[in-house]
Amino acid sequence: MAKFERGIYFLDQKDMPTRWYNIMADMPGDMPPMLHPGTGKPITADDLAPVFAEECGKQEVNRTDRWIDIPEELLAIYRTWRPTNLYRAHRLEKALDTPAKIFYKYEGTSQAGSHKPNTATAQSYYASKQGLKGLATETGAGQWGSALAMGTRFFGLECKVFMVSISYHQKPYRRILMETYGANCVPSPSPETKSGRAMLEKWPDCPGSLGLAISEAMEYMMEHHENYRYSLGSVVNHVLLHQTIVGEECRKQMEMAGEYPDILVGNIGGGSNYAGQFFPWIRDKISGKKPNLRIICCEPESCPSVTKGMYAYDFGDLSGMTPLIKMYTLGHGFIPPPIHAGGLRYHGMAPTICHLHRLGLVEAVSVPQTAVFEAGVKFAQVEGILTGPEPCHNVKVAMDEALKCREEGVSKTILIAHSGHGHFDLAAYEAYLSGKLVDYAYPEEEVRKAQAELPKVPAA
Amino acid sequence: MAKFERGIYFLDQKDMPTRWYNIMADMPGDMPPMLHPGTGKPITADDLAPVFAEECGKQEVNRTDRWIDIPEELLAIYRTWRPTNLYRAHRLEKALDTPAKIFYKYEGTSQAGSHKPNTATAQSYYASKQGLKGLATETGAGQWGSALAMGTRFFGLECKVFMVSISYHQKPYRRILMETYGANCVPSPSPETKSGRAMLEKWPDCPGSLGLAISEAMEYMMEHHENYRYSLGSVVNHVLLHQTIVGEECRKQMEMAGEYPDILVGNIGGGSNYAGQFFPWIRDKISGKKPNLRIICCEPESCPSVTKGMYAYDFGDLSGMTPLIKMYTLGHGFIPPPIHAGGLRYHGMAPTICHLHRLGLVEAVSVPQTAVFEAGVKFAQVEGILTGPEPCHNVKVAMDEALKCREEGVSKTILIAHSGHGHFDLAAYEAYLSGKLVDYAYPEEEVRKAQAELPKVPAA
Repeated sequence: MAKFERGIYFLDQKDMPTRWYNIMADMPGDMPPMLHPGTGKPITADDLAPVFAEECGKQEVNRTDRWIDIPEELLAIYRTWRPTNLYRAHRLEKALDTPAKIFYKYEGTSQAGSHKPNTATAQSYYASKQGLKGLATETGAGQWGSALAMGTRFFGLECKVFMVSISYHQKPYRRILMETYGANCVPSPSPETKSGRAMLEKWPDCPGSLGLAISEAMEYMMEHHENYRYSLGSVVNHVLLHQTIVGEECRKQMEMAGEYPDILVGNIGGGSNYAGQFFPWIRDKISGKKPNLRIICCEPESCPSVTKGMYAYDFGDLSGMTPLIKMYTLGHGFIPPPIHAGGLRYHGMAPTICHLHRLGLVEAVSVPQTAVFEAGVKFAQVEGILTGPEPCHNVKVAMDEALKCREEGVSKTILIAHSGHGHFDLAAYEAYLSGKLVDYAYPEEEVRKAQAELPKVPAA
Repeated sequence: MAKFERGIYFLDQKDMPTRWYNIMADMPGDMPPMLHPGTGKPITADDLAPVFAEECGKQEVNRTDRWIDIPEELLAIYRTWRPTNLYRAHRLEKALDTPAKIFYKYEGTSQAGSHKPNTATAQSYYASKQGLKGLATETGAGQWGSALAMGTRFFGLECKVFMVSISYHQKPYRRILMETYGANCVPSPSPETKSGRAMLEKWPDCPGSLGLAISEAMEYMMEHHENYRYSLGSVVNHVLLHQTIVGEECRKQMEMAGEYPDILVGNIGGGSNYAGQFFPWIRDKISGKKPNLRIICCEPESCPSVTKGMYAYDFGDLSGMTPLIKMYTLGHGFIPPPIHAGGLRYHGMAPTICHLHRLGLVEAVSVPQTAVFEAGVKFAQVEGILTGPEPCHNVKVAMDEALKCREEGVSKTILIAHSGHGHFDLAAYEAYLSGKLVDYAYPEEEVRKAQAELPKVPAA
């Protein structure tokens, strides 16, 4: 009889973490705060009150409480899909003939298919407690939009989504999913806002951009201000905070497996998936308990915010409506090439991740798109799971690390932060399989131009 | 602090069942065997050896062994996604304001998104042990085809899929998934077989049918006979046998929940999903331990094999290439209306389910398509999961039963056999949401015509 090899580590709901981990309480160095673009002063919860649900604004600037209790009513919602599973990739290990042990924590079994519901339901909960009527947001390919559509519906709120027009028309499935949840989803540019109307007048067939969609969502929110707030799916502190349940669960599951990772691998677009996984582990590195823990951030070669960006204050959106954020940036005016990993097409990065990188606590690599899908196909063929284009980036890098282990004859434990499935991204796989997928070179000239337009920071 | 309400029952892999349940060993009454269409004699394992992998043929006619060990190597594969979760639908109960307790056993977290891998990997395992080179099959919308594509790849086999042409062209995502797994998928009719070529000559734009695709797959298999076998995804005994791991797991999980179901609800197309769930429970009814257990089979109003079919020997396919099967049938020449539940568009039914229905051990109801999607949208909005069109049928019937509980003021425990997600079926949801979905009346005249063409059974 063959040896019993456990493929999945289930965590009972009784053992599900009931607190988020706020890394700001442990953050080493002097992490620069977000600044008010008018005054140059650090942003306060009061500044954020008209933008986000009040409690989210408070969490955003909280630098003291290490642990934040997850409200009981939200835990009950989390229990409709959490804890998510930790998988041991036995078949991938065999296929690579590596002595490495490969694990992946998989968020694809959430109802919306990704990690995004962890914060979408949290933000909806706080908005509902505050008595708000709805949340407005933007979405690119629709992963974030569909998670927020579900979250708002769970708490009886309205949801308004401005979806980048070209995705709205070319990738209707995520849009239909949002509508099934009851959200109102419109293509951006839309006739519903000033910015949308202005663009449509200039350019009736405008395909839209994430930056424009953000402007529309914020404008819509301000017009419905009494009852609406704006909701973001990545980058800022409170969003990353809500994702830490992923890593806290994973610590318990790795303990069940009797393993501690040598290497953590995750993809970064705005940072919410990977931060959710690695923040709970990096505290062992910050405290000095695990000085050799490697944390690798993976990004696209054509949109390499951390590996090639400038560390500077910049806006989070194209139009300059957000606070100033100190981060690695390719310039808020930079429009990334049309790679299939929609969630990684962002000019900036979570300021927490940037700061940790500056301190040398995390490293970053960039990978080209065809290599990424080659890894995704390999992974599907041995593990069965069809990986979304974003986490395909870290599958690629994890496989490279496992092959290094084979060359060096050492067994390391590699843990992948797998944010979700690619059921709505099969057109990208088809492009790869039919040889039509191209790699985009790093657009150095465009980045230089965009970085020349960084905002001036007013003297506080 | 609110009461801890468990939303998911996880079953540890150590407790995963290691045997399938063969209901034939316990089958009451005198269930008519499959017959050889030439001789009229009961089919033997030898008759089946040129068609199915040898071990599958043996399982098909096994009427004596109650338990069949799942091979160790296959258990290791099952452990890449099993045990699947049992969910308690707290939010649905609250939305319906019902005293009923509603549970659903959900197969949508398998890599292929449905219950189909339970038998796809098993058939691939046996084919591989036998030293075969590949398996050929047909698929409608692609759920079965993608599961077999994955299963064959796991065991290093080739996979040839004939996909109904109209689905191949209109619903490319499942096809791309099959190709990602490495299967060779062609639209049927294809130029690769005689039946395909004959049809293309007559009708170059022929949209195809499941019956034609079966003929092509069987022909392809016979041409590659030395190394290929044919693979089926439902109806026959060995396929249903492989699905019983679902119900065996579920029994353990319901025990964890401290509940025994009063009502089981599942959809039936060929029968494989629901049989996998209810066979392990019905033995308590057969043995007399649970005489009041209700087992409700749900089917489409426009293709109501059990509720309106004739109990007779018929072919399993359109062209009459299969053995004769005693079942409820609408006639093998009947082409069901184009409802969105592709998996339920079948003229016949698993002979085991038909026999149990004849004995009064299970009941059947049929439901119209718009009511089915109305229930699916409701379910998505409260539970989050986007249900496939097939299991939407039993979600609808379970909701009706829960509402009856409210009216009658009684609390019953209802267990839904939920076969998978609808991520590839969003066009159907859109049709419903935009008011374009229609109900098809039961096509009585077409059924009568098809039933007039039932095959004659040769005297044995």
